[in-house]
Amino acid sequence: MTYRINRTRLWESIEHSATIGASKNGGLDRVSLTDSDRQVRDWLKRECSDAGCIVTTDDMGNMFARRRGCDSNRSPIVVGSHLDSQPSGGRYDGVLGVLAALEVIRTLNAFHVNTRHPIEIVNWTNEEGTRFPPTMFGSAVFSGARSKHDAYEVKDQYGNTFLHELERIGYRGPEVCGDHPIAGYCEVHIEQGPILEENHFQIGVVTGIQGMRWYNIAIEGIAGHAGTTPMHLRRDAMVGAANVIERFRQLSIEYDPSAVVTAGSIAVSPGSRNVIADRATVTLDVRHPNRNSLDDLERAFEYEIEQIQNKFGLEIRLDRILASDPVEFDPRCVDAVRTAARSEGVSHLDLMSGATHDAANIAPIAPTAMIFVPCAGGVSHNEMESITPDDACAGTQILLRTIFQYDEILS
Amino acid sequence: MTYRINRTRLWESIEHSATIGASKNGGLDRVSLTDSDRQVRDWLKRECSDAGCIVTTDDMGNMFARRRGCDSNRSPIVVGSHLDSQPSGGRYDGVLGVLAALEVIRTLNAFHVNTRHPIEIVNWTNEEGTRFPPTMFGSAVFSGARSKHDAYEVKDQYGNTFLHELERIGYRGPEVCGDHPIAGYCEVHIEQGPILEENHFQIGVVTGIQGMRWYNIAIEGIAGHAGTTPMHLRRDAMVGAANVIERFRQLSIEYDPSAVVTAGSIAVSPGSRNVIADRATVTLDVRHPNRNSLDDLERAFEYEIEQIQNKFGLEIRLDRILASDPVEFDPRCVDAVRTAARSEGVSHLDLMSGATHDAANIAPIAPTAMIFVPCAGGVSHNEMESITPDDACAGTQILLRTIFQYDEILS
Repeated sequence: MTYRINRTRLWESIEHSATIGASKNGGLDRVSLTDSDRQVRDWLKRECSDAGCIVTTDDMGNMFARRRGCDSNRSPIVVGSHLDSQPSGGRYDGVLGVLAALEVIRTLNAFHVNTRHPIEIVNWTNEEGTRFPPTMFGSAVFSGARSKHDAYEVKDQYGNTFLHELERIGYRGPEVCGDHPIAGYCEVHIEQGPILEENHFQIGVVTGIQGMRWYNIAIEGIAGHAGTTPMHLRRDAMVGAANVIERFRQLSIEYDPSAVVTAGSIAVSPGSRNVIADRATVTLDVRHPNRNSLDDLERAFEYEIEQIQNKFGLEIRLDRILASDPVEFDPRCVDAVRTAARSEGVSHLDLMSGATHDAANIAPIAPTAMIFVPCAGGVSHNEMESITPDDACAGTQILLRTIFQYDEILS
Repeated sequence: MTYRINRTRLWESIEHSATIGASKNGGLDRVSLTDSDRQVRDWLKRECSDAGCIVTTDDMGNMFARRRGCDSNRSPIVVGSHLDSQPSGGRYDGVLGVLAALEVIRTLNAFHVNTRHPIEIVNWTNEEGTRFPPTMFGSAVFSGARSKHDAYEVKDQYGNTFLHELERIGYRGPEVCGDHPIAGYCEVHIEQGPILEENHFQIGVVTGIQGMRWYNIAIEGIAGHAGTTPMHLRRDAMVGAANVIERFRQLSIEYDPSAVVTAGSIAVSPGSRNVIADRATVTLDVRHPNRNSLDDLERAFEYEIEQIQNKFGLEIRLDRILASDPVEFDPRCVDAVRTAARSEGVSHLDLMSGATHDAANIAPIAPTAMIFVPCAGGVSHNEMESITPDDACAGTQILLRTIFQYDEILS
């Protein structure tokens, strides 16, 4: 027989979550360790307890809600995501993953299904990182990628530390963060990109997470009067920036369709209407599923910068300020998701995640996979973020099936 | 015989001016209608009185210092510029023109030379316009290009009006601004550009002032996640801005060597490192000596914008926010400068001014010319602004000769 998750119940819990820290325009303002974060945590705790789970919290505020397995020696299969949001974020980013996990537990309860492994819902602390940067604090400390001490000391813009705020909302738990073996991890998440929608697939089978590099590009020219400096005598930093941005775009397109290159912000000095710019700083975000390709692109950028320097008489520096290597998920787990989707008869596409997720932190310490659900227009980190109940339901149903697979294949 | 101006005296007065409102790095912070503006005005008044001039001030604060002519029916030949500076401006911009005029008067005194016309030094109020925008208030009201009432009401960033501050420093004079016929006008000024230096000329014979147009370019795209939006699905406003900036540069170079096009400032929204920009605003400054050419360029920009819109799926708007037509100086006056330079045996080049000056306001109401002196690297509006005593001296000597010519040819 096939167990079916309860579509109405799932959607109602998502709608309820959206009332906690609701923002003006139908989104969420539920930034980590604020009062509304506490409220949604309190609500999750009640719902999980009501579903018969034992809820524990670690000293990073990560919350686990355990449904017993038949074999009490086994580590749990952990499913979830995060309930915090961007300051004007959407209702589904992270939320769907936690509440799909809750729906899975409720379905197991409804059908009195026993699993070998315990099943646990997780709500990771401070995934968004807008208040306490960078992103994915809770899972990073959990996996050992980041020191707890350093995380505790990070301050928000008003000078309050992460630790202070964690204690203030009452979610510094007794369990030592990371002292919590897990058998496997699966995360449902909205795609936050347009690929599924554009190509008419209902489910993304996530094979891993792209590598990412962040750069600052500093361009130095010479200031001059806009009216009196002939074009051929200029060393215009703004023109340098324009050429860098457009050429890097072309390079990424020439490279392969998996490369994405974004110049998201620029600062120009002196920034005056009638003065030739002497300095421009451009930020660059480069992603690719393959590490060697990131190296290739970096070399191509360096070469291009030399051309632009020479052509326009500028000094240009490319500083890499962050590099995260691509993550490949566990092939057995990815295959479990793929098989689940196939069994459900749902159209599905293998893809790499362009955005990063808590799963990137967990993958090195436990067999991991992710399930993507399309979001309208690929829009995310935005109050307009939108998904359909159909897709949410399909993602959750596939999560349920995936867990049964995990329960069989993982030790 | 040839009367020679006194190089030491000229340079000393320039050095003295630089002590009033001196900025940290050797430049000037002598913004209009501040206490240091009052101080330099008081000093000028004393020096002019000591030189036997009668000093009057009009109700815009423009100061005139008259040396009597033989024919009391004649209107004065007016020479000068402005003593106010940018907040971190140079020592010579404007200052040289006023103090060259003072040196001419002193030289006439020293050699007991009589002229037919009275000779007047002028110090125009608020040429820079940084505190009370836009530029060239004093000469604009004088010539009727701007209403005095409107000028009076302009506020600085702290809410003080121009009139309030003019009265505060005690320089709202009794004379009605503009009620002051003038026979001819000549202004010595630093070039504020690199042409003379690059081409090894000591003096610029300024034939007029370029036309100028200011535009705002608004580019609308669609925001998206930097990691998840494939390149071919993007509508990236930053990429649109980069293409506009670089293509407009190319268009101006293809057009003719007199065209100059500058994108001096840019604002991008949301301006986040990992978000594709949905909006960019670029400012554009376009100058050319010829009005029709400005029209040509504007049409070329409009056409190019259409191409870029279509290529990148963006909405782009070009708004012209200011247009000033080219000014041609009086051919007799320009010839007087050219003849003076030739007689002095000084290398000289005819050129259009790229920057605008008080002379642009006076040209429509009186025969006008300008004399340019090179400045190092073309750098101006900058504490690093620098000229040589040799060049300052040559410019002033040519001003003296030009005034003799004016005195003969003007009625």
